[in-house]
Amino acid sequence: MAPKAEKNLTNLFQETLKDIYYAEKQILRALPKMAKSAQSAELAAAFQKHRDETEVHVERLEQVFELLGVQARGKTCDAIIGIIDEGKEIMEDFAGTAALDPGLLAAAQAVEHYEISRYGTLRTWAQQLGMKDAVKLLDLTLGEEKATDAALSQLATTAVNAKAA
Amino acid sequence: MAPKAEKNLTNLFQETLKDIYYAEKQILRALPKMAKSAQSAELAAAFQKHRDETEVHVERLEQVFELLGVQARGKTCDAIIGIIDEGKEIMEDFAGTAALDPGLLAAAQAVEHYEISRYGTLRTWAQQLGMKDAVKLLDLTLGEEKATDAALSQLATTAVNAKAA
Repeated sequence: MAPKAEKNLTNLFQETLKDIYYAEKQILRALPKMAKSAQSAELAAAFQKHRDETEVHVERLEQVFELLGVQARGKTCDAIIGIIDEGKEIMEDFAGTAALDPGLLAAAQAVEHYEISRYGTLRTWAQQLGMKDAVKLLDLTLGEEKATDAALSQLATTAVNAKAA
Repeated sequence: MAPKAEKNLTNLFQETLKDIYYAEKQILRALPKMAKSAQSAELAAAFQKHRDETEVHVERLEQVFELLGVQARGKTCDAIIGIIDEGKEIMEDFAGTAALDPGLLAAAQAVEHYEISRYGTLRTWAQQLGMKDAVKLLDLTLGEEKATDAALSQLATTAVNAKAA
């Protein structure tokens, strides 16, 4: 058995890539349900748009796996399972109330922030590992996750939440 | 039994307050372990500093509960449990390797981003509910979480990770 000391940043990069790959696939499944639950057409449209972006994020991750020369594979990510489960709980507890959309927005922003943290980390590591093409791919997705979070913040401060207050 | 339709943004605010209150207490327990594991003195100091700030964050949440007129109480937060568990896994898998500190940094930044998302949401809701004193308290903590995340990003791009690459 190889000693633990042989593990390096490339291994950590690869493990974290598997983590976010699994997470993105879970998000891809959750977003249509969130869009269907949303009361506001604006919020439903935002979720639908982000679902389409998420498909591209999955493809970009597959390209990063290819750059590493390993097969794309997910690894159970307890963090995203917990975040999505909390969202489901809100969808159930606040169904049919004016607080449903604010709750959905909060759940979606927790998801976005998890992704922002992971993509930020992966981009930094790709830079340190000299993987320029991976940096570009990760940076594109990071930008889109930040833009989605900003768009959701905007929705949260305007129409969607005001109704519930 | 009261009909579901009676639930409103105040209920959602209160539920989310319980969620982050539980999360902060978990973080308070995790940070000393992370500080002890860190190889770099700089990183250990950053974790220690944030542990002290977290104590204040817990107190501020207790003040917000007081403003709401309800007893401070946590509610199991699956998201933070998942995020912290992933951090523990990294601490075990990369113990004794040069990738341990980058892994700890990644785990801590995932925690920070969860908090940034929750405090951002709570602050927006407090504004919409006209709870000015709560807005101030939540805003103070939000600022500190963002500053911590920025400080960790800085560490990640400099000394700490470079050694592992």
